[in-house]
Amino acid sequence: MRASQFFLSTLKEAPSDAEVISHKLMMRAGLIKRLAGGIYTWMPLGLRALRKVENIVREEMNRAGAIEVLMPAVQPAELWQESGRWDFYGPELLRFKDRHDRDFVIGPTHEEVITDVVRKDLRSYRQLPKHFYQIQTKFRDEIRPRFGVMRGREFTMKDGYSFHSSFEDLQREYRNMYDTYHRIFNRLGLKFRAVAADTGSIGGTGSHEFHVIAETGEDDIAYCPDSDFAANVELAEALAPATPRPAASAALTKVHTPGVKTIDELAAFLKVPATATVKAIVVDGDESTGNQPVLLLLRGDHELNEVKAQKIAGVKNPLTFASPASILAAFGANAGSLGPVGFAGRVVMDRSVAVMADFVTGANEDDHHFTGVNIGRDFPEAEIADLRNVVAGDPSPDGKGTLEICRGIEVGHIFQLRTKYADALNCKFLNEQGKEQIMEMGCYGIGVSRILGAAIEQNNDARGIIWPDAIAPFQVAIVPMGYAKSEAVREAADALYAQLTAAGIDAFLDDRDERPGSLLADNELIGTPHRVVIGDRGLKEGVVEYQGRRDAEATKLAVADVAATVIAKLKG
Amino acid sequence: MRASQFFLSTLKEAPSDAEVISHKLMMRAGLIKRLAGGIYTWMPLGLRALRKVENIVREEMNRAGAIEVLMPAVQPAELWQESGRWDFYGPELLRFKDRHDRDFVIGPTHEEVITDVVRKDLRSYRQLPKHFYQIQTKFRDEIRPRFGVMRGREFTMKDGYSFHSSFEDLQREYRNMYDTYHRIFNRLGLKFRAVAADTGSIGGTGSHEFHVIAETGEDDIAYCPDSDFAANVELAEALAPATPRPAASAALTKVHTPGVKTIDELAAFLKVPATATVKAIVVDGDESTGNQPVLLLLRGDHELNEVKAQKIAGVKNPLTFASPASILAAFGANAGSLGPVGFAGRVVMDRSVAVMADFVTGANEDDHHFTGVNIGRDFPEAEIADLRNVVAGDPSPDGKGTLEICRGIEVGHIFQLRTKYADALNCKFLNEQGKEQIMEMGCYGIGVSRILGAAIEQNNDARGIIWPDAIAPFQVAIVPMGYAKSEAVREAADALYAQLTAAGIDAFLDDRDERPGSLLADNELIGTPHRVVIGDRGLKEGVVEYQGRRDAEATKLAVADVAATVIAKLKG
Repeated sequence: MRASQFFLSTLKEAPSDAEVISHKLMMRAGLIKRLAGGIYTWMPLGLRALRKVENIVREEMNRAGAIEVLMPAVQPAELWQESGRWDFYGPELLRFKDRHDRDFVIGPTHEEVITDVVRKDLRSYRQLPKHFYQIQTKFRDEIRPRFGVMRGREFTMKDGYSFHSSFEDLQREYRNMYDTYHRIFNRLGLKFRAVAADTGSIGGTGSHEFHVIAETGEDDIAYCPDSDFAANVELAEALAPATPRPAASAALTKVHTPGVKTIDELAAFLKVPATATVKAIVVDGDESTGNQPVLLLLRGDHELNEVKAQKIAGVKNPLTFASPASILAAFGANAGSLGPVGFAGRVVMDRSVAVMADFVTGANEDDHHFTGVNIGRDFPEAEIADLRNVVAGDPSPDGKGTLEICRGIEVGHIFQLRTKYADALNCKFLNEQGKEQIMEMGCYGIGVSRILGAAIEQNNDARGIIWPDAIAPFQVAIVPMGYAKSEAVREAADALYAQLTAAGIDAFLDDRDERPGSLLADNELIGTPHRVVIGDRGLKEGVVEYQGRRDAEATKLAVADVAATVIAKLKG
Repeated sequence: MRASQFFLSTLKEAPSDAEVISHKLMMRAGLIKRLAGGIYTWMPLGLRALRKVENIVREEMNRAGAIEVLMPAVQPAELWQESGRWDFYGPELLRFKDRHDRDFVIGPTHEEVITDVVRKDLRSYRQLPKHFYQIQTKFRDEIRPRFGVMRGREFTMKDGYSFHSSFEDLQREYRNMYDTYHRIFNRLGLKFRAVAADTGSIGGTGSHEFHVIAETGEDDIAYCPDSDFAANVELAEALAPATPRPAASAALTKVHTPGVKTIDELAAFLKVPATATVKAIVVDGDESTGNQPVLLLLRGDHELNEVKAQKIAGVKNPLTFASPASILAAFGANAGSLGPVGFAGRVVMDRSVAVMADFVTGANEDDHHFTGVNIGRDFPEAEIADLRNVVAGDPSPDGKGTLEICRGIEVGHIFQLRTKYADALNCKFLNEQGKEQIMEMGCYGIGVSRILGAAIEQNNDARGIIWPDAIAPFQVAIVPMGYAKSEAVREAADALYAQLTAAGIDAFLDDRDERPGSLLADNELIGTPHRVVIGDRGLKEGVVEYQGRRDAEATKLAVADVAATVIAKLKG
């Protein structure tokens, strides 16, 4: 493509509402234009990258045996009422009435629609399994759309739905998609991790998220560099320490700690590390335990994991912190001075607390703590549970090393929905015995437009975007210095452009009549991974300058060799 | 593609809401599934055809120099208020409020959005012209969606918008698109006509519609088989007859015509042809004429063209038929007995009436008519205008033959919008003199999903669809008789499939274990243009059966020749 026949529109400054680097760079490079909050037009340059992602996703989904369809954006409310999500889904579900006053939604997802197609059209086990997918425009009415295409309201997704005659067959397809997603994100040229995930609001059991690794990601991921273990921090198990509990050596001593409320204040006041303290958190029990408060104990430097805590039998779900009044009634003291010593109720301690000795806790008397606290001696042995978030350095749950924590941007998600939607929508088939049976379902999403934001978060520098080869709008930028003025430059640029184009390479010939500095800056901002600069001075020596977008310096190449060199880099 | 890895779902009967043949066949062949009124899921087979249309449109738009973008479906109301269409557009414009109670629409068209992009991004005449297009999902809340994808609510369109520094340059691009649309519809393999059209509600001046010719079309088109003249019947000019008015030969005679109201009744009662009668239609004049009634005279067998009538100076626009009370007041008689003799008001007669003599009209007395009426003798010479729809046999306005009338389905439309939207949205550029100037605009639409319906309306028979090669979901169907049972059949079918696929042909191998009659019927219904049937009996003689979808009979081909023969047919 020649710049003169294309449309570039770069900006010196990003708009003030752009908070993250990918949003800033997408606006500055002119990939997208804002129409309304979370709603963008894909400009020619951005659309080229979007289509490349779509095509890789499509090719790999087809190769994996999934069949492409295209479902409507507008869906009748009846199906959402039938599945129960009409009431369950929040205001992210955009609802409207048509001219005949009938309720509709703009689809944020398509479980209902595809299940409706399948229940009407597939009858026999011989027609199963089937996996239908689409690449389609979705709408979610986010309360605070931001980060450009990473949390937009209108966006492009690949969503696939598989239907099976047995759970075993669903598991087979789930593994097939797990592998397919690895192929897709590898082909896209992204650093990513598949992590075990909570299933969130989409429902069902068994799921993995696919995260692009980036410092600016919204999710904390615990992973093991020595194995393929990875999980959301909320879900990763904190193993019990391998070391046994030391013997008690200090006496239980009550200390006046005036005004000390937090672990940091306590450690500073007593001049002990936070790891020698134990924090006490009081939550409500559920009806089975007469709603009695439950005391949770964590090492001072650890964070409570609420997902884990609310899974403990007898603890109220969702987790509810005890009110100040009920704390005072049960402990005779206020939060900040609580501890297990003398507390007659239920105590659950984290695995890390269970191996501590001679530690510090609140004394159940305002402005007082105990030092030299020991389990069994000063309060009864208590229940032990995994209550905390993992931290870097924790042993990996798969026993293969220690955990690291990184941040990720979720770009894919695979679920074993099981029979959640098939039950609700009565999606049945006749099994080999001729009996009706509910289908097993999986669903598999990729945030196609979000991938572009994530790719830029992972690949950028002070000068702009650094596209992976596979999804760059253009693979090579030919930047002539003086295309309009120098016949030699023009001829060399045109010849290289013709050679690369003939080899099937997406070349961009920047034939705009702009200052050299502006041409170079624009092409770095745009992030084309390979660049060839052609100038009169070099041509006199028979050379042009090649520079990879990540290269510190340019390399001189003979004019005769440049096409072959670039082609080898791209096809090698 | 193998049927076993695909999804076919044919029906014996079309659903009862399918009125036209393309809707019936699309449902029966399983190309689409209905989700709600005018809202369909594209099933795998239909989506393949849709994508082929999209790709041809995209290739030709790119070749013509247009640049692809992708605009949002959801648009803020502010832009529509700014253009004035928020008030002007009817309930087809789907309006809704987001969670923050702000007004939005689901875009039925994108003039506002693209003009907003351009006014913010293009400043100089040096950046013009630019033509942006997209292939995108639109929504129009039709009051009565029907005919399947031909008048759906959610549909796929190609819409392009060009911006120019002068009217001359807009005209150049308009011609470019006129030619591009011809290339597109030719490549799609459709019989079509470009017709001069009214601009309808989209506004502006100067437009052509592109119609696929089909008996079931909704629009009447007048065309000249001997030239490229074509126009909507409403817009085609009815030339004045070349013959002069004969001399009067009959006396004016009043006849009692009890109960005679219509021209048919009158002609039957008087035993004269309808061509010897003149009908009188009374419409309101506008304020410039004091709202006085205007009498329009047409030959009895002709139809009033309201578009033409309301363009007459002094006639109320939009055209309004006079009320019974005002007719009675002005003529002393009721409709059905009216005429020019004795009427003192304004009379406008059609060109065909102006050359009549000795004709029949109402006598302005209930249940009475005059015979032997003559212009000038019995009432004053009146204004002459083109007031009627053309009919088959009329001279072509370009003077190159006589007109035929056919029916068409509108699948494309090109407009010279001029400055309608650029004015409203203040879309300006700096001209060569450094002065601000409003841009000239063109817009160019193709009903991408509608094309599939139109193609089927034009190409079908009692057995099903007959796809043009270019947009067929599959180009060749390989139909083995006994794929599961006969190793010889299976090997021959697999070998042919491999050969055709390797040659880049979209082959469909129907490896389903169904009865031969069912396989053949399904493949005819689906409409694959070329078919090879492979059976044990033929293989013993070394032959298979080739049949084009329009061929009356199959042709035996040697097994060794069949791939080459089919490839030659498809690649020309």
